[in-house]
Formats: sequence, structure tokens, C-alpha cells
Amino acid sequence: MTPRPHTAVIGLGAMGLPMATHLAAHLPVTAYDISAPRLAQLTEAGGTTAPTPADAARHADLVLLAVRDQQQVDNALFGEHGAAETLRPGTTVILTSTVGPDAARTTAARLAEHGVLTVDAPVSGGPVRAGSGDLLIVVGAEDKALALARPVLDLLASTLTVVGPRPGDGQSLKAINQLLAGVHIAAAAEAIALARGLGLDPATVVESLRHGAAGSFMFADRGPRMVETYENETAPEVKSRLDIFVKDMGIVTGIAKDAHVPVPLASAAQQLYLLGERAGLAAHDDSSVVTLLSPKSAASPAQKGEGR
Amino acid sequence: MTPRPHTAVIGLGAMGLPMATHLAAHLPVTAYDISAPRLAQLTEAGGTTAPTPADAARHADLVLLAVRDQQQVDNALFGEHGAAETLRPGTTVILTSTVGPDAARTTAARLAEHGVLTVDAPVSGGPVRAGSGDLLIVVGAEDKALALARPVLDLLASTLTVVGPRPGDGQSLKAINQLLAGVHIAAAAEAIALARGLGLDPATVVESLRHGAAGSFMFADRGPRMVETYENETAPEVKSRLDIFVKDMGIVTGIAKDAHVPVPLASAAQQLYLLGERAGLAAHDDSSVVTLLSPKSAASPAQKGEGR
Repeated sequence: MTPRPHTAVIGLGAMGLPMATHLAAHLPVTAYDISAPRLAQLTEAGGTTAPTPADAARHADLVLLAVRDQQQVDNALFGEHGAAETLRPGTTVILTSTVGPDAARTTAARLAEHGVLTVDAPVSGGPVRAGSGDLLIVVGAEDKALALARPVLDLLASTLTVVGPRPGDGQSLKAINQLLAGVHIAAAAEAIALARGLGLDPATVVESLRHGAAGSFMFADRGPRMVETYENETAPEVKSRLDIFVKDMGIVTGIAKDAHVPVPLASAAQQLYLLGERAGLAAHDDSSVVTLLSPKSAASPAQKGEGR
Repeated sequence: MTPRPHTAVIGLGAMGLPMATHLAAHLPVTAYDISAPRLAQLTEAGGTTAPTPADAARHADLVLLAVRDQQQVDNALFGEHGAAETLRPGTTVILTSTVGPDAARTTAARLAEHGVLTVDAPVSGGPVRAGSGDLLIVVGAEDKALALARPVLDLLASTLTVVGPRPGDGQSLKAINQLLAGVHIAAAAEAIALARGLGLDPATVVESLRHGAAGSFMFADRGPRMVETYENETAPEVKSRLDIFVKDMGIVTGIAKDAHVPVPLASAAQQLYLLGERAGLAAHDDSSVVTLLSPKSAASPAQKGEGR
């Protein structure tokens, strides 16, 4: 294991670019993305770029995958000019995307045919923490693969939890995390919409309840952004896109179905995020789900005296 | 305002008895309950008892109502031998039960016909905190009524939030609190049931996720009790009965309907608590909802290889 492994980063999106930039300050990094401006930002940070995933991976000891979903994972690795064309046996792919346990297992099996190891390592924490090595990473990997990936994982993570020895184990815990996070955001939206409907001041409600038995990380974090939605003309800054939860609650309900575990609240939350996507909120902050339940411009029908 | 008002307590249940016992150490307390053993416990703590609500209220400056639901409130105040028969004009009723804003407003209007003031003051915190003056109390009351009730409220509350001047305002905030609490418990149950279905260790999952973006007060509090359900032969100690959430999620979805605010997650949680009640769990700890989603004795159908 080299202490400064040559690392290919594929995908310079909201998470990939800050991770690659942070790594480039410590390691040789070669990146691929479809966006020339994103590649230019990495070059400024000291990285080099490549025209295809295969070119990015050609001299790499490690490949960090930071793409959106399983289809992009498949394209990046096994598509035309995919990284699998050039990866040498004994190298390691770090899968940071949230794709679900089955997809991680399938990916690992296909890479194994090339003699390539897989570290299942979905990340949490958002873009700001991604750029400062402050991510939560949950890992499923055998010891050998984990040891090879350590130099990169240790640069990116402030908390690293090894869930189990198999690719997919990290995805399973990440799915549980997303179940709770997605339900808690939707619950915060219901609480704030109902507060508004009852004529309470939403900001006071958030402040009164955030530290007690009703509190959650998401109520304290997204609650004030939901309140801001009603107080300001412009929508809140996009810190976490709504359509991430369309994808992730799809993973959650899919694996729950496969495990024959009923998840009625996660299913209701999934429908809410799908409604948000249909309402044009896919690229908005996920806190915007509150506007589905209590539209920004209007008082509730009850307040207007309708339907009584 | 007398600094040591004579206080009648009606209802010596899980919350009423510790509240009455705590008050009896500081004030003259006369209590009514249908249970002779509960009355005896109060007598031991220095209180006196009465055979009917009317007798308990006869010499009272304040009446603290700590009964279960609106029907018991109506019986205690306006039924045969109800407190309204003896309450003098200018006295004050403190309504600590969670009954919803409409019921609090109706009760206040009926008491006003007797010249009696109402302080809407639903409480949170559980029996242990009720016995040590450490409750969270959310109040809807006009200034005059609040001032009269202060000696009792200050003995019971470590945090007192005055939501607004009208009875019902406290109930509105309490309903928002219960929406979040009830949804968060159900979400914790889904998370732990799914973890089990995926073959993860539920205790490790709770420990890994409780401090992060997936965390909630209820996940940290009820999560370990849900884990305990699977580890022990006997059910966890009943700290909060499941049927409290059957009642309170009924209030939440009722007022949300009246306000024309969709609450799909609260509705799903309500159905889960109703299923729990039907399954014989009404008097069990609310953490027992997890056993609906992942039965204690059996592996999931998927783990047994069925349906594949």
C-alpha cells in the first residue's frame, strides 16, 4: 500500500468536486466529469483531468466513484471507455454513491471479474463537509480492500464506521440513515404546515419544540429553512436537492419490500418527494416539500372560510 | 392571588398522581379518583381525598384536571357530582390533559358560564418528571387566569411556554409536539425493523446513527427499548402507553383535516398505532410498535427464503 495512492475521481458533482479538491491537496488526483467547467475547477485546485473514465483510471491505484446513481455507476465502470477497460488487477474502486445494497453487490461481483476490489463506502454530510474531510462514511469491505482504500477514506472521513465485510453492508446502513432522514424532513414539513394552518407562528414552534421530545436533527436543521420559505421572497439556498430523496426513498422502499418489512411512513414520505418532483421542485432544497402541504402564497382553505 | 392556593386534583393516573404528590408537599391538595389505592397513595403523601369531583372542588381556589381524554374532562366537570356544581366564580381550572384545541375551547366556554376561568396547559415529560416539577407545559390562557394558576404551574414546570391568550393555543402546540413525537417513534420502528430484515445488528445501527443527521430524541430514547424487545424474554417496562398515541394521533389528524392541511406521515403513524391497539398492545410501551413490523419470534419471510 502506497501512502499517496494515485487516485482517479469519476464524477465532479455536488459531492465529487469538493471531495476531489480536498484529495488533490494531499494526493495525485486525475478526474473525469462531463462538465468542462467542473474539470477546470479541479485543475485550479491542483488536479489533472482526463477525457474518459478509462483514461482517468489508467494509472490509478484507487478509483473514487462519486456519481449520482446506479446507471451512472454502470456507465462509468462498464460502459464504453469505462474505467474497467484500464483498471489493473489489484486496484480498488471506492463506491461513495448511495445505490442500495443489491447494486453494490452486483458492482463488486463484476469488478471482481477484472481482479478489482470494491469498497462500498456511501457518504453523508453534504458538500461543505465533503470539502474539509468531515464526512460520515459507512463501509462494507473486506480487510484487504479497506486497507488499500484507507489513505483516501481517512482524508475524507471524520467518522468511519465499518458495518461489515461485504460490499452492500455500507449501503444497508446508509439506507436506514436515509429512511430516518427522509421521514424526519417530511415530518418537519407536516409540523410546520399544521402550525401555520392552526394560526401558530412557525418560527416560535420550531424554537419551542426543537430541544424536547419532538426534536430531531432534521427538524432543527430544515425547520428554520422551511420557516424562511414563508418569510422570504426567494426560495432557500439549495443545500440538499429534493430529488436525492426521490432516489433514496426509492432504494429504501425497494429493499424493505425485498426484505418483506412494512415501512408505511417511509412509503408516505416517498410519495411526498415524488409529488415534490412533479411540482417542479426536483432541484430545489428538500425543505421545499413544506410548500406542498401549505402553499407559500395562500392561507389554508379553512382560514379563508371555505368548506365550512 | 394566594401564594398557597387550595388545589383540587381530579385524576390520579400515570401523570396525575405524581403531580398531586409533588403539589401536596407545598400546597393543600384535595384529590378525586375512582381508584381507592391511588387515593391512598396521595393520602400517604399528605393530601386529602374526596368522594366526588364536586366534593374535591368545594373549597378549591384551583382545579387541576389530569384525566385521560375529553369524555373524562366532561364527566369530571359537568357530569353528575362534577366539579362545576361547586366551583365558585373566580376560581380557575387548569386543563393538563391533551384533548385538542376545539375541546379546550368548548370546555373554557362552558366553564365561563359558571364564572370559572380556564388555563389550557397540556403537559409533556412523563411520570418521573411529573413527580419532580420538571415538566414541559405549553399554555393558552389570558393573563388573569395565568396569574391565578402560576403557583401551581411554577411548581410543576421546569419549562413553561405561553403560546397565546386563548384556551386551545396550548393544545395546538402540544398537537404539533405529538405529531413529531408519534411520527419519530414510528420511524424508529421502521428503521430498526428494516435493519433486522437486512441482517444488520439493530443495537449497532442505533448507536451508529443516533448522533447524526438521522437522529431524533425518540430514536435515541425508544430505539434502545425496541432493541431490548428482541434481546429479552419480557417486554420492556411501560414508560409511555401505546394507546396514548392512538388518542393523540387522532387529535392530530382531526385538527389537520379541519385546517385542510395534508399530513400523510402522521396518518400513516396513526394507522400503525391503531394496528398496535388491535394487536393487543394498547397498554404496552409505545416502543412495541416495532413488533408489528418485525415480529419478535420470527426471521423475516425473506430470510426464511419464502416468496423468492
